[in-house]
Amino acid sequence: MKTASENTCFGGTQGVYSHTSKSCACDMTFAVFLPVEAKDGPVPVLWYLSGLTCTHENAMSKAGAQVWAAEHGIALIFPDTSPRGESVSDDENYDLGQGAGFYVNATQDPWKPNFQMWDYITEELPALIAENFSIDMDRQSITGHSMGGHGALTIAMGLPGRYRSVSAFAPICSPTTADWGRKQLTAYLGTDETTWAAHDASLMMEKTGFDGPVLIDTGTSDQFIDLLKPEALSVAIAKRRQEATVRLQPGYDHSYFFVSTFMEDHVAFHADALYTD
Amino acid sequence: MKTASENTCFGGTQGVYSHTSKSCACDMTFAVFLPVEAKDGPVPVLWYLSGLTCTHENAMSKAGAQVWAAEHGIALIFPDTSPRGESVSDDENYDLGQGAGFYVNATQDPWKPNFQMWDYITEELPALIAENFSIDMDRQSITGHSMGGHGALTIAMGLPGRYRSVSAFAPICSPTTADWGRKQLTAYLGTDETTWAAHDASLMMEKTGFDGPVLIDTGTSDQFIDLLKPEALSVAIAKRRQEATVRLQPGYDHSYFFVSTFMEDHVAFHADALYTD
Repeated sequence: MKTASENTCFGGTQGVYSHTSKSCACDMTFAVFLPVEAKDGPVPVLWYLSGLTCTHENAMSKAGAQVWAAEHGIALIFPDTSPRGESVSDDENYDLGQGAGFYVNATQDPWKPNFQMWDYITEELPALIAENFSIDMDRQSITGHSMGGHGALTIAMGLPGRYRSVSAFAPICSPTTADWGRKQLTAYLGTDETTWAAHDASLMMEKTGFDGPVLIDTGTSDQFIDLLKPEALSVAIAKRRQEATVRLQPGYDHSYFFVSTFMEDHVAFHADALYTD
Repeated sequence: MKTASENTCFGGTQGVYSHTSKSCACDMTFAVFLPVEAKDGPVPVLWYLSGLTCTHENAMSKAGAQVWAAEHGIALIFPDTSPRGESVSDDENYDLGQGAGFYVNATQDPWKPNFQMWDYITEELPALIAENFSIDMDRQSITGHSMGGHGALTIAMGLPGRYRSVSAFAPICSPTTADWGRKQLTAYLGTDETTWAAHDASLMMEKTGFDGPVLIDTGTSDQFIDLLKPEALSVAIAKRRQEATVRLQPGYDHSYFFVSTFMEDHVAFHADALYTD
């Protein structure tokens, strides 16, 4: 693991690191915020998965999460959204290929050799984090924005017991029925739609739910709301009788101005779960 | 004035606007954050002047100021740092020309026709703001980062009575004696150094001071600290017996991770002044 940069930030350290990923067969970059408390021992951690076109950098710089993570003594991890590089397959559209990994393990060519983002986020990167940072891997929670909200929800429900709480900002809720999903799941997983169900938050919610609290925020003026389909997740949460808070925020759109506005609430929500024994 | 974008943010509106500037003889872009209170009547305002290479966008997205401005019911204005465009003179170096206006009125060619940033920030843009936004121009304060900290301090001291308080993050404190300053003041104002004194915060502080409170933060690990020369301003403040808080923040560098860390303090500092009758 190489250190690209480390900046003092809210009393802690905002770092950017790179490593050669086995899962993705390329160099990957990620960011970690460590609160000052990490100097005295392992701290709980909140994962933040980003949306289409983003790298580790967007949320690190624009989501305003460090102030609240510092307040609660929680680490933040900002992974990249896909494998990267000249040797990695890509697509001319922004919503497929590099920057658009959708947090799945691709089984189809040309994506299969690199696009193993589920394994990367759930196995390889956690092992690297546990080895190199003062983080308590028994106290993890996860959040994300848009495609990253989809990732946070599907990963949290797909790995029962791993995360204490899950939240999402404007998540893609129904990728098996929406244009943000069908195209990518076809490309990465193939045309057998039965393989898609493990990557659809609404289907997973209805089938298994999440063993912990859930918080979802979506703006009523989100320009992509017809692609996100928050109604699919809302009905699944209601049918499941899932412990959850689902909020539609009047006037907010899909931008980081929306994410940063509600970040305080999300970090406090996760802190409640992370500090409960 | 044209609206480029408006996003709901912390209950208020983060907007980006453009207009044709007479002072700078080109189109200029700026950003305004209006807290929700602006709907009920004019609110006080904090100007934020940015540093070298920045546009209106950097601080708007990365400084984390809106959360605190919303808390205090204060508007924020983020101007650009220079005139822009193909018809505007530029330099091959990042620290001269476009993105590096240094908040002066250039008297030298080729800069003179466009680089009238003092007039733009102190006359033209305030008039445009007063006409178009629910902002109380009798309650203004000003801050900035690096070159923008230089701008905030020199403008605040150069216009007695205009601003109630002034603060700066890692300001360029001694442009008449440092490489961040001598080159630009020579280019914009010419070789007669007597014309430079009105654009050097330390010289102005020693000569006239500021009729209100001053707050300065600089990181001890600032990679540009030898160019900033905080010691020049510190001695001037002490000699002047200026009401001021000057802090050196251990471990912080020149980045927005530093700025965002202390933004809460700066906005609260200005709010105290802006809400005192």
